[in-house]
Amino acid sequence: MDSRTGLPVVGMVGAGQLARMTHQAAISLGQSLRILAASAEDGAALVAPDVVVGDHRSLADLRAFAAGCDVVTWDHEHVPNEHIAALAADGVAVRPGPEALRFAQDKAAMRRRLTELGVPCPRWAPIGSAADLESFAMSVGWPVVLKAARGGYDGKGVWLIESAAQAADVLASGTPLLAEEKVPIARELAADLARSPFGQAAVWPVVETVQRDGICVEVIAPAPGLSDETADEAQLIALRIADALGVTGVLAVELFLTTDGRLLVNELAMRPHNSAHWTIEGSRTSQFEQHLRAVLDYPLGATTRTAPVVVMANLLGGPDGVVPKGIDERVHHCMARWPDVRIHLYGKGFRPGRKVGHVTALGPSLDDVCERARAAADYLANGDAR
Amino acid sequence: MDSRTGLPVVGMVGAGQLARMTHQAAISLGQSLRILAASAEDGAALVAPDVVVGDHRSLADLRAFAAGCDVVTWDHEHVPNEHIAALAADGVAVRPGPEALRFAQDKAAMRRRLTELGVPCPRWAPIGSAADLESFAMSVGWPVVLKAARGGYDGKGVWLIESAAQAADVLASGTPLLAEEKVPIARELAADLARSPFGQAAVWPVVETVQRDGICVEVIAPAPGLSDETADEAQLIALRIADALGVTGVLAVELFLTTDGRLLVNELAMRPHNSAHWTIEGSRTSQFEQHLRAVLDYPLGATTRTAPVVVMANLLGGPDGVVPKGIDERVHHCMARWPDVRIHLYGKGFRPGRKVGHVTALGPSLDDVCERARAAADYLANGDAR
Repeated sequence: MDSRTGLPVVGMVGAGQLARMTHQAAISLGQSLRILAASAEDGAALVAPDVVVGDHRSLADLRAFAAGCDVVTWDHEHVPNEHIAALAADGVAVRPGPEALRFAQDKAAMRRRLTELGVPCPRWAPIGSAADLESFAMSVGWPVVLKAARGGYDGKGVWLIESAAQAADVLASGTPLLAEEKVPIARELAADLARSPFGQAAVWPVVETVQRDGICVEVIAPAPGLSDETADEAQLIALRIADALGVTGVLAVELFLTTDGRLLVNELAMRPHNSAHWTIEGSRTSQFEQHLRAVLDYPLGATTRTAPVVVMANLLGGPDGVVPKGIDERVHHCMARWPDVRIHLYGKGFRPGRKVGHVTALGPSLDDVCERARAAADYLANGDAR
Repeated sequence: MDSRTGLPVVGMVGAGQLARMTHQAAISLGQSLRILAASAEDGAALVAPDVVVGDHRSLADLRAFAAGCDVVTWDHEHVPNEHIAALAADGVAVRPGPEALRFAQDKAAMRRRLTELGVPCPRWAPIGSAADLESFAMSVGWPVVLKAARGGYDGKGVWLIESAAQAADVLASGTPLLAEEKVPIARELAADLARSPFGQAAVWPVVETVQRDGICVEVIAPAPGLSDETADEAQLIALRIADALGVTGVLAVELFLTTDGRLLVNELAMRPHNSAHWTIEGSRTSQFEQHLRAVLDYPLGATTRTAPVVVMANLLGGPDGVVPKGIDERVHHCMARWPDVRIHLYGKGFRPGRKVGHVTALGPSLDDVCERARAAADYLANGDAR
C-alpha cells in the first residue's frame, strides 16, 4: 500500500507502450505504476515517476523491484519463468503466476496443454531434428510453419518453410522448435478477456486483426460479419483457456478462422495486448484498467462497446530514423484532417517496422471508420512519403 | 522540443488534479507534462516524472521552470500576473497570457471588462468602504453578494450579507472587494470551450452544474431540458468572451440561469475546469487533451458527445481524515456495485470538503445516470457512514 494514498502499488516489469498505457490507467485509480525498465529512455519510463532501471533477467533486480509492490505483473513475456516462480516462493503476488505464464512463454508447452484440453489448434509437433520435420511434413504436407518455442514476437521466430533443407540453419542453432501445419486462413481474430484471482472473467467483443509481414497493423471491433455462433465459440475458447490455465490479468487469444469455418488457436498473450488497444476509447473499461483491476483482484469493469464500430491502426516506424523529422508537424496535420481520430504515441524512436503508436477511430459505418483510422495512421507514420 | 521524441514539452504551473489529468492526456500525445509543484506529495507530482518543486509566487522559480518548456500553462490562478507578464517579456510562450488571465484572477477587472463588452452579468460595484456597500445595496436591495476580487474559489472569498455591519471585518481587512446583486437563480450552467492562438475555438455542450455550500458536487451534460436558444446563447457568450479576451486553452464560463430566464455570467476560469471533467469519457476529446492542443496551437479535437447523458459527481473528503481507512475496500465495493461507472482518484488526502476525486456515469436515461453517479460518489467518499 502507498501510505500517501491508502491505495495499492502495482509493479510492472518492462517499460514499453503497454506499461506506458497501464500507467495512464493507474492514475485514474489513484495509483502510480511502479516500473522496472531496461533503460530510463523506455516509453513508459519517460512518463512515470516510480521507475527502477534494472534487468528483467536478474532475480536480484526482480526481488529488489518487487519489494515495493503489492502485486507484480508483466509488460512482456521475457522474464525467466524460474525467476517468476522464485518471486512467488518469496511470497510476492505475481499475476499472472509462473504456472500460467509458462504457456505464454513456451509455444510447445502451450500447444501440448491446449491439445490436452481439447482446444482446437493447428496440427503441430515438437521438432528436434530434420527427421522430425520431414516426418511432420509427411502427415500435414509442405509448406509448414516452423516456430521458435520461445522469444518470438511480431513475426520474429516464425518461418514458413518448404523443405527440411531450408530449415537447416535454424535446426542447427539448438533453439527449441515446433512445427505447425499451414492452415488456410480466411482471417485472424482475437478473443480478449481479463480474469481475476477470484475467478471473475469479462470478455470483450471478438475482433478481427489484420497482419502485414507478421505484424498486426489493424484491429476491427467487432470482427465484421462474424456470426454470433463463431463469436460465442471464440469467447468460450478464451474463457476455457483462462480458467484451465489459471490466468490472472488480461488474456489475449489469437485465433485463425479457416476458409472452411474452423476456429484454431494461434497464440496466447497474458498481458495487455495490441488486439485490445481499441478498448481505450471503444469499451467502457479499457484493457489497461481491466488488467490492473484483475491483478489487484478488484471487481472487473463493464466491457460494453461505446460505438458500433471501433478501428485501431498501428503506426509502424518508417525509414526516417529514430526521431522522425517533423513528427510534430505530422501530428498537427493529422489533427486538422481527422479531428475525431484519437492519437496515441509511445515515446519510442521510429525504427522501421517498430510499433511507435496507434490511432483509434469510432463510428457507425465500417467503411468510414476503417478509412479514417488507416489514413490517419499512414499519415502519422509516413507523412507525405506514402 | 524533447529531443528523445521530437515532440513539444508543455509545462504546467501547479500540481493538483488538473495537472494530474493533463499529464494523462499528454502521454497519449507522446509527451510528458513538466510540472511545477509546491510539494513532491501533490497529486500530479505523484504520477509524473518531470516535476520541479518550487514556489509559483517566485519569479526565479518560474523562470527556472520555464527554461525547459515550449509552452507554459496553469493549473490554477494563483501565479502573480506580473510574473506571467515577466515570463512573456522573456519570450516564454505563456498560454493563456497575462492580458487574458488577469480577468480570471481579478473578479472586479472581469466584471468591468465584461460590462464594457455588453456581456450580461449581475449588477455589481467595486467596494472600498461601508458607504460603497450601503450605496450599492440601496440600488439592488439586501442581501448582496460580497466577493474578494482575488484568491477565492469553491465558495471561499464569497459572503452573502444582509447589512454593511455584517461585512465590517471583511471591509476592515483591506482585501479588494466587489459586490453583486443576489440574482434569483433557477440553476447554474457552464459553457466550456477551448481556443488556440490561431483563433480556432471548439465548444462543448452546455452543462448544468449543481453546487452545495459553494462547491460543485455534480455536473450534468448536456444541461437537462435547456432550450436550444438558451444553450446557443450561452455558447455564443463563451465564444465572445474567449475571442475578446484573447483566451488560449480551456475557458470555463460559469453562468446563472435566472428564474426569469436570463443568462448572467458568474465566473471565468482559464484552465481545465471541474465543469468539464465529464469530457474524459463523455466527449470525443477531453478537456485535458483539448487544453494541450490549444496551448500548443495544434488543431482542436472533436467535441462530439459519446452518450446521450453524461454525469460527473465529485468525491468530497469526509470526516475520516487525510488517508481514509479502507479507501481501497471502498473502491472494491464501488467497482462491484457499479461496473460501468468510471472512477478518478486524485492522490490527495481526504480532508473534509476537499475535492479528492470524481466519478462519471453515461447512458441513455437521465434519472438512471444521475442515480448511479451520485450513489457511487457518495459511497466512495463516505463508505457506509452515509
